[in-house]
Amino acid sequence: MRKIYFDHASAYPVDSRVLEAMSEYYSTWIGNPSSVHSFGVEARKSIGKARESLIRLIGASDPEEIIFTSVATEANNLALIGYSTRNRRKGTKIITSSIEHMSVMNPCKYLQKLGFKVTYLPVDREGFIDIGRLEEEITQDTILVSIAYANGEIGTIQPMREIGKITREKEVVLHADATAACGKIPLDVQDDNIDMMTVSSNDIYGPKGVGALYMRRGVTVAPLVLGGGQERGYRSGSENVPGIVGMGRAAEIAVEEMEDEGKKLKAFRDKLISTVLSEIGGSYLNGHPKKRLPNNANLRFDYIEGEALILSLDMVGVAASSSSACTSKTLEPSHVLIAIGIPPAEAQGSLLLTLGKSNTEEEVDYVLRELPGIVKRLREMSPLTPGGV
Amino acid sequence: MRKIYFDHASAYPVDSRVLEAMSEYYSTWIGNPSSVHSFGVEARKSIGKARESLIRLIGASDPEEIIFTSVATEANNLALIGYSTRNRRKGTKIITSSIEHMSVMNPCKYLQKLGFKVTYLPVDREGFIDIGRLEEEITQDTILVSIAYANGEIGTIQPMREIGKITREKEVVLHADATAACGKIPLDVQDDNIDMMTVSSNDIYGPKGVGALYMRRGVTVAPLVLGGGQERGYRSGSENVPGIVGMGRAAEIAVEEMEDEGKKLKAFRDKLISTVLSEIGGSYLNGHPKKRLPNNANLRFDYIEGEALILSLDMVGVAASSSSACTSKTLEPSHVLIAIGIPPAEAQGSLLLTLGKSNTEEEVDYVLRELPGIVKRLREMSPLTPGGV
Repeated sequence: MRKIYFDHASAYPVDSRVLEAMSEYYSTWIGNPSSVHSFGVEARKSIGKARESLIRLIGASDPEEIIFTSVATEANNLALIGYSTRNRRKGTKIITSSIEHMSVMNPCKYLQKLGFKVTYLPVDREGFIDIGRLEEEITQDTILVSIAYANGEIGTIQPMREIGKITREKEVVLHADATAACGKIPLDVQDDNIDMMTVSSNDIYGPKGVGALYMRRGVTVAPLVLGGGQERGYRSGSENVPGIVGMGRAAEIAVEEMEDEGKKLKAFRDKLISTVLSEIGGSYLNGHPKKRLPNNANLRFDYIEGEALILSLDMVGVAASSSSACTSKTLEPSHVLIAIGIPPAEAQGSLLLTLGKSNTEEEVDYVLRELPGIVKRLREMSPLTPGGV
Repeated sequence: MRKIYFDHASAYPVDSRVLEAMSEYYSTWIGNPSSVHSFGVEARKSIGKARESLIRLIGASDPEEIIFTSVATEANNLALIGYSTRNRRKGTKIITSSIEHMSVMNPCKYLQKLGFKVTYLPVDREGFIDIGRLEEEITQDTILVSIAYANGEIGTIQPMREIGKITREKEVVLHADATAACGKIPLDVQDDNIDMMTVSSNDIYGPKGVGALYMRRGVTVAPLVLGGGQERGYRSGSENVPGIVGMGRAAEIAVEEMEDEGKKLKAFRDKLISTVLSEIGGSYLNGHPKKRLPNNANLRFDYIEGEALILSLDMVGVAASSSSACTSKTLEPSHVLIAIGIPPAEAQGSLLLTLGKSNTEEEVDYVLRELPGIVKRLREMSPLTPGGV
């Protein structure tokens, strides 16, 4: 059966050029970067090169500002928990938004248990935070603002430059979770005045098992994992050399290809959205029509249960999701959709299609051909449908 | 130039069969295990299979007792910090040894700052802890004993079954860091009464970027990384599916081949040790001659500086180390060698040769041919040598 993968928000394939770059570090250049011999030297060099590639992707200037972690979730934890516990003497207030990923939300809840005060900024119908409200909330006691650059679920891209201006003026550290944004849209931590930024390897077609936290010079965090003092003491544990090499190669490719890929995916995205909205009655777009990630189409349908929709699509060979894979275990409606004001019953009827560079227009057309019939069938079976469709 | 790798304690090559098992999870079956669709189902199944392989390697009975982490260091942190902070109401005393890896040592120091009391048991000349002393140290307030199954640097294998008998009798949780032991010698967490055990993927010829903590049913820890609630909530972050698949395959291979490989490496090890001790004057073995890891030869030489020895060997194509790669950055003599009573100046003259399954007898012979000349040359140049060699 045909297999169409429209669920990149959950996991990305690894670029074949990335796998090639990684391959010799599994069995030929297997050294530990801490070793004195030539295998160790090669490992150190290769990690240094990956740091260089990363800073070019995010507009940083110093490779030492990159701390490799095991996954974006860990980088978010290091930024939130590591920064707050280390800098507690400066203040105890943290500001974030109500649509952050669970790897920001749950560290915030943990910090509240430790006595920190966390403000979860509300967002509007399209998922934007209110810049004026952010400014008001920054008090003398505020040490950290953490706002995702773009939301992986509804695709909304925050006005990061405006946010960074405010936090810089108020001398508060700004962390941006760029898991969903990085590699999709141009980022520049210097122009945006971002002090810490989370980058995911897999979300830029790199391997899983690695992630990174950009930490501007002068920003310090308490490490979460202690041991041999790798990554300048901020993250112990033998470095995942092949993974780091792969992430570096993925960053290089993103720098070169992001723009063209973005144009292609944006066209697919807009075709998906406009065709669904015009051809399927009772369908709506979640998020903003333009200020959204180029690969993100988040739709919802009246009288439809999201999981049934995903399973029906799976039966015709299409992988999609109804919300963030990371929260799908709970079976509760997405906190992001609730935060933008979608009633829980409607939020359940959401379909998240996230595109990647291997997707083709033919695949887009296939989904657009299959979807109306599936929605119709599910509505006919649904007890929610008022008197049939 | 010939490249001989005798530094497996620092990093292992990945078995080609492991890479093969991983390959389809990079680009074909890329699903997130939390996803509903068939890609997600495949990812869940593959992780479940890896858990099964792991429990067979370590003698556990329930795949749910395996928590995947990003590296052994993280598993040690989860065991030490996670268990102690979660179970503080039960007591505040922890017992470990003075020859643990930094990923146990540094978490212990951190716990001391939080108010825990840590006893670092001394070891004898060969690196064994004193069982009687361990028994005496376990008080009503003791909640955790953490002893490495085998020491990665001097190779000493602890009498784990005796240790486990005592901790079980005294109803104290036992954690064993089996990073160096696992895949080298048979392990059985049930027979040994081990409650938590750290397993490294790379040290069993699996990929870096993954590790595991065995946690016996009923043992609970506070997670270090918070987010989407993966790994039963004990370790959030999108699962490194290819890495986990690779670690599982490596475990399968270890179950099948460990015994034969161990015999081969033990013969190489003993040839290295006996030839050096008989042919090079002023040379000594660190650790026990028999109760040591089959792939570990740790030697030291009078009047020699370890780093010069490593660099000289590197110049003839042999990668080795002088102590644990994880602590080599500090340039201080190994705390393990100091703990077994070697004076700092002598500890600096150590040579750690750690073998792997791709090593051949020819390589062993090559090192044995090169080493005497290198030691002679270095001694001639050394200001420490009393009146030449």
